[in-house]
Order: sequence, then C-alpha cells, then structure tokens
Amino acid sequence: MFHHSSDTICAISTPPGRGGIAVVRISGKDAFAVCNKICKPAKTSTLMLEKAKTASIVFGRIFRNNEILDEVLVSTFHEPHSYTGEDVVEISCHGSLYIQQEILRLLLSAGCRMATAGEFTQRAFLNGKLDLSQAEAVGDLIASSSAAAHRVAMQQMRGVISAELSALRNKLLNFVSLVELELDFAEEDVEFADRKQLKDLALQVEMVIRRLADSFEAGNAIKNGIPVAIVGETNAGKSTLLNRLLKEDRAIVSDIHGTTRDAIEDTVVIEGLMFRFIDTAGLRETHDTIERLGIERTFQKIEQASIVLWVIDLTNDIHENEQLIAHIINRTEGKKLILTLNKADKLTDGERTRKTDTYSQLNEEYIIISAKSDGDIASLERRLVKVSKIPQIGENDAIVTNMRHYEALVRALSSLERVNEGLDTGISTDFLSQDIRECLLHLGEITGQQISTEEVLENIFNKFCIGK
Amino acid sequence: MFHHSSDTICAISTPPGRGGIAVVRISGKDAFAVCNKICKPAKTSTLMLEKAKTASIVFGRIFRNNEILDEVLVSTFHEPHSYTGEDVVEISCHGSLYIQQEILRLLLSAGCRMATAGEFTQRAFLNGKLDLSQAEAVGDLIASSSAAAHRVAMQQMRGVISAELSALRNKLLNFVSLVELELDFAEEDVEFADRKQLKDLALQVEMVIRRLADSFEAGNAIKNGIPVAIVGETNAGKSTLLNRLLKEDRAIVSDIHGTTRDAIEDTVVIEGLMFRFIDTAGLRETHDTIERLGIERTFQKIEQASIVLWVIDLTNDIHENEQLIAHIINRTEGKKLILTLNKADKLTDGERTRKTDTYSQLNEEYIIISAKSDGDIASLERRLVKVSKIPQIGENDAIVTNMRHYEALVRALSSLERVNEGLDTGISTDFLSQDIRECLLHLGEITGQQISTEEVLENIFNKFCIGK
Repeated sequence: MFHHSSDTICAISTPPGRGGIAVVRISGKDAFAVCNKICKPAKTSTLMLEKAKTASIVFGRIFRNNEILDEVLVSTFHEPHSYTGEDVVEISCHGSLYIQQEILRLLLSAGCRMATAGEFTQRAFLNGKLDLSQAEAVGDLIASSSAAAHRVAMQQMRGVISAELSALRNKLLNFVSLVELELDFAEEDVEFADRKQLKDLALQVEMVIRRLADSFEAGNAIKNGIPVAIVGETNAGKSTLLNRLLKEDRAIVSDIHGTTRDAIEDTVVIEGLMFRFIDTAGLRETHDTIERLGIERTFQKIEQASIVLWVIDLTNDIHENEQLIAHIINRTEGKKLILTLNKADKLTDGERTRKTDTYSQLNEEYIIISAKSDGDIASLERRLVKVSKIPQIGENDAIVTNMRHYEALVRALSSLERVNEGLDTGISTDFLSQDIRECLLHLGEITGQQISTEEVLENIFNKFCIGK
Repeated sequence: MFHHSSDTICAISTPPGRGGIAVVRISGKDAFAVCNKICKPAKTSTLMLEKAKTASIVFGRIFRNNEILDEVLVSTFHEPHSYTGEDVVEISCHGSLYIQQEILRLLLSAGCRMATAGEFTQRAFLNGKLDLSQAEAVGDLIASSSAAAHRVAMQQMRGVISAELSALRNKLLNFVSLVELELDFAEEDVEFADRKQLKDLALQVEMVIRRLADSFEAGNAIKNGIPVAIVGETNAGKSTLLNRLLKEDRAIVSDIHGTTRDAIEDTVVIEGLMFRFIDTAGLRETHDTIERLGIERTFQKIEQASIVLWVIDLTNDIHENEQLIAHIINRTEGKKLILTLNKADKLTDGERTRKTDTYSQLNEEYIIISAKSDGDIASLERRLVKVSKIPQIGENDAIVTNMRHYEALVRALSSLERVNEGLDTGISTDFLSQDIRECLLHLGEITGQQISTEEVLENIFNKFCIGK
C-alpha cells in the first residue's frame, strides 16, 4: 500500500442544484479545526465541535465576517468511526445554491481543499474501511437506475465478490505454500503436496474463476443496460415503437423525480432490468452505392446489440423485400432476435393470419403488435425480458459487472490454466509456484491487495461523482 | 390557531437528481414506528431507533423483502427538539435515483404520506417553532441566489422583522388597552389616556410601518432581481452587450456548480445584487403601422424596468434618429437611465470626443464602451450597481421583501391613518379602539398571530420546494 495525503478535503455530497437542504462533507485531520473557524454551536452550553461525541448532531451557525450565513446541523464523526476512517464533519445547510457555494468558499479559505471525484471513497479504501472492489461498488450503486443493477452493486459493496475471492485466495495460498515447501527442500527431491490433490484444487479454483468471469456478460448487461437494436425497413414503424417504449418508462420515473430526463435518454427499465435502445436508420433495397454505405452502418450498429428487434410492416408482402430480408437474417446470426410484426390493426383477420404464417417462418420468436395498442407494448416488454435471459440474481450470487475485474479474472484464469497444464506435464516446482503466485496477484488486483500504481486508483475513482 | 393533522409525512429533502448522498426526511407522530418497519440498526448492540438520543446518528440498513436495499445513516430527533417540533427521522442514503425512489415507496407503504411543498416548514410554524414571516423566509432563503437576497431572507428568518413588528404590536396593545379602559368607564366620561401622548405614539408607529412598507421597493428588487430593460436601435449592439453581461456571470457560477443554467437564465449577480435583464426588440424610425405596434411592445416592457440601459451606436449621427430619440426620452421618464455609448473603438479620438459631447446632452448618466472590452463591461456593471440605489443593508435592518407582508403593512398603515385622523378630530373612543384593533390585526397577519383560513397558509407554503 502506498502513502497518501491526509490533508482536509471538502465537497457538496448531495445532488447539484437547489433543494430543501444540502450536505457539505469535510474529511481529514483538520476537519474539526476547519469547521471551528467558520461554525459556532448555537447553544453556548454546547461544547466545541470536536468535543461532541462521534455520530452526534450539533445545531450551529455558519459565520462569514461576523455575520450569520446560515443556521445548520453539524454531524460529527471521529476517526476511525467515519465513512473515510478520518475525522469527518457533515454540514447540513439550507439548500440554496448561494449558501452551498459560500460555505464551500469559507471552507476553502479556512484551509480545506476541494475533494476530487470519489476522493472520500478512495480514502475509505486507503484507510481499510472498504476493499477496492467494494469501493468501486459505491460508485456503481449511486449510478444504478434499475433494480437489477442496484442489486449487483449492493452485493459487491457488501462484499459478496470479495468473500468469494478471499475464499479462492486462501485455497491458492494453501496450495502455493505446500508447493513452496518443496522448493525449500529442493535438494532432497521430496513431494509434500500430493499432485492428485493439487490437481483437484486447481480445477476447483479454475471452475469458480471461470464462473465469475462468465457472469460478466450478464453483469455488464445489467449494469450498462441490455443493448437492443431496432431495425427494419423504412416506414415499418420503428420510431413510433421506440417512442412508445421510452415514453412508458418516462412517465413512471417522473412520478417521483422531475429531472431524470438526460439520465434515461435512450434506456427503459422493464421489470427491473435496464434496456438500452440503439436506433438505426430505416433499411430498403437499393442499388445505390452511397445508400448501401448507410445500410452498412446500420448493420455495424447491430453488432453492438445483444437483442435485435426486427420491425416488419405486416401490410407489406414478404416477396417485396426478399433480398433485404435475407441480408438481415444473415447479419443477425447469433443475436437474440424478436420479429415484431407491426401494423396488425390495418389488416383483416384473414389477411393477418396469412401474413403472420408467412413471416413467422423467418424466426420462431415473433410477436404481433399494433404500435398504438398499450397491451401490445406490454407484451413486447415482457418478451424483451424473457429473451434477454438475464438470470434471476439471488442475494448472495456473485456477479461481476466491472470490466477491470473481468480482465483481472481472465488473466487469473490464464495463469491457472498454465498451472493445470503444468501439473499434467509434471512441470518443475518453481515454475508451478510462479504460475500460482501470478494467479494470486491477479485476484488481488480486484480487491486492491495488489495495486501497483496511483494511476490505477485515479482511473477508478475519477468516474465517481464529486462528494462521494 | 386552527387544528392541523399530525399524520406522518416524508419527502426527499435534498436537490432532485443523483449525488453522493441524499436525505429522506420523515416527520409526524409515527416517524419512529414507520422507520422501524423498514430500517434496522446495523449493530445489534444498538438500541431501537426510538431509543436513540435526540440529535444522534445510527448506522442502519434499509430492508425490502428481507433484502438489503441500502446502508444508511439515520438521524433521530425527538419532539419538540426537531425542525418541525414533531418526531423527525432523517435517512441519509446513497444518492442513486433508484434508492431514493425505493426508500420513498417503502415509507409510503409503511404508512407515511408524501409531504406537500413546504409542509415540514408549515408544521414548524403550526407547532410554534417559527412565526409565519420566519417560515416564509425559509423559502426565500432557499431560493436566494445573490448575497443581498440571501441577507434579507436570513434576517427575516432570524426574526428581525418579527422583532420589529412585535415591538410595534406591544406599543399598540398598550395604546388600545388605555383607550379601552376608557370604554369600561364610558358612563363616567373620563380620559385615562392623554390624547397628546396617544398622538405621539400613533405617529411614531405610523412612521415605523411606513418605513417598513417603503423598504418593499428595494426588498422586492433584491429578492426578484432589479429589472433592467436594454433598449436601443437595431444594430446598436444590444445582444452582444447582454451576452457579455450574462456570460461573465455564468462562468463564475459554473466554477462550483454545473447545473444552474435555467435558474439564472436572464439574471446576473453583480457585487451581490441580482439584476434581471429584459431584452427588447431593436427600435428604428418607421411609418409602418405594424412595425409601430412592435415598438409599442418594447415601450411596454420598459414600463416593468426600474433601470433602462439605452444602447446607442456611437458611429451613428444623433440627427439621423431625432424622432426616435425624443420618443425614448419621453417614454423613459421616471426610470433610472444609463446612456450606453457603444462601439467607441470604431471611432478616432476626435470623432469620439465630438459624438460623446453631443449624445451626453441627452442624459447626465452616460458611459462609453466597446462591448468587446472586458474593462468596459466591468465599468458598466459598477454603474448598474451605483444607479440601482439599493441601500447597503446592515445585519439588523428590517427589509420587507414579501408582497403579502407589504399588503398587510399598507392595510395597517391605512388603519393607523384613520387612528391619527380620529385623534385629530376627537373621534369617539369605541371607533378609535376599533381602528387600532384593525391595525393590530393586519400586523398580526404578517407573523401569523392572526391567520383566518387554511387557504392563506396553503398559498404561502405551496411555493416551497418539496422536502422543506
């Protein structure tokens, strides 16, 4: 673990903007001294701030040039009993922008420094309050906007992954110590570790790491939204459908919050899962080279999707677009495909049955809708959830959602594969030991037991919001 | 005072949106019982929430269907030692939108009701923690975005106006009790109250009320911004000037906060005063009836302004626009006028002197600028502050900023004028008493000692933000 500064930092921890109240957080060795300079307890009977018990609240007044700037509640936490593990003071002030800004200015001139993004949580990690994967989960937790994303972030923050990794590390440490014991007695050519038992252990560890790495596909979809491309010919009704899908969700979210528009711009939460929609330009058969380039771009977008919503205008005849249809089938191979037969309301019952029979041969997963019907949109949403195949996540299932963790797991896996190979081929003990040590190193990167540079930490925490 | 409900209310008190942390506030007789249903202290050694001391913080976990939704800090306040005077619990949770929303949902199903705008502060008033003018000041304090607006709101919240009114009321009560003593002995035709002394007292009270009412012009300008109309002929450089004035300020504000754009759309804070700019269409001499209607609209906008910034293109000759100039001078009478001689950089020194001499005869308050020069914009800003004539406000100066208070003061003044008249004409004691009682009633409306309907309260508090 490398050295870190303990200067006193401050930031507004509540969302930016105006509200009933706002909270300014201060952490560091001078947290109390700095606060004493700008804030006086309102009751003269009350002790100085630093004399207040940990986890207690003092009613106080913020002064600027002997004039009262605000009446506030001050929460005091003495190290190590705080979020960061340092002395922490939280000032709960009236939520005007002016007051928030002025309190920050006063704190800065009293000797604080503005906290960088995620710096409070980084300190919590450096002081051993959280391991690195838990600290990263704090950022994910705040960013989560669906039930599933929230659940996996909460699990990670509570240490479900850390516990799983810790168990693996203990097994590997036991393993490597046996192997290294042999190295100490290398002259004597003994085998303390039963190679059969070692092999069993290595396979077992490999299985767990592989399961964790495999969970990343689902975890990433949960965290960043399941990518869904909406494709189809021009005028098939893609935009109407997308707007309906997006609007449904907006209404629910804005029930309670007014200002989340930018956050959910193109995402919808359905049954607790977030779907991220990728809009594409309408397709049509063409011999024009330039138009073909546009179509190519649409197909490139399909590559990013895990689900393709193929919207078909049911009033069109299947033979009109044979070439295009073949092309779409070709380019969506391996994707989860939902054939969305639209404009069903414009056909007679007989026509609808006939057309549906024809089109449904293209793909077994299909749904008939009228983009204007509420019931149909709800069915489509249920179908999206079903097709996404995101597993139900129990409270103690470890799911990897973090690219950095995934990469470390892949590297750990590759070391472990070498271990297994080595055991099969009877590799020398020192090589064996080296491969196990490498695997341990990669696993340690995840929880932060093994972090080489400050740069890595910076990359992790600068994605946080200021004030956390 | 009328009866009010004490059911348990909840709301998010921090600004809407995502942040490091958010605070959910709960108030009412079941505040602790409701929280116990959804939140458990994390340490088993910790007592139940309601056993926690007032103003203390408990680390807890929010549960939803036996699953941990969030790890939170719970601040507990027992009635009457809380903001509302009721039992209050504040949950400081991770600031994701999802968590905020879910905690609210859990509280609602545990028996809370969503608080209406300002309902916490309304309860504080109804429970005698604040008088009505102080409660209103809480809303103003949160809305304030300039140093001056903040200062007057803070004074009002701290009770400077209440104290002034209370002193007035005491004098009047003393007055009326003397007068009414005479009524009790009406048969005997005695005068307990020396009419000369009464007259002195009434004049003194009238003077104070008049001073308070007169402070409203400045107070209103401070609270809502000093309205400045920018007028001038087409191409005089009005837009460039406005953009420069607005941009200067934006940069300062966004230093600390990123998301205040809509709040300060057309206002600028200069030396702690807020100016509200009213943009107008460019003027030019015309014989066209339709165009004249447009010009009329510009002049109507000037009516709303207290300062008129008249931008003149110094490269134009004064004789070119004689009619228009006469018209502007005519329609800006009584307004504070700043003649802004623009595009000075486009003239030679000689020309500039000559033109300035001519134009400066139009108005003694003028300034020469090039809208592109930083120094010139700064001089213009200083000039705006000087011309606005907003008095420097001391910490204990009572300034009325609230229309409702102003109206009550005007009514109180009118009653008091009748009292003074009555004393001059030797009006009968019972009429005198009635007029003084009326004056007392109007003063009492301000601090809420005399509030007749629930409707009045609703009007006051529904302008608040939710959660305060």
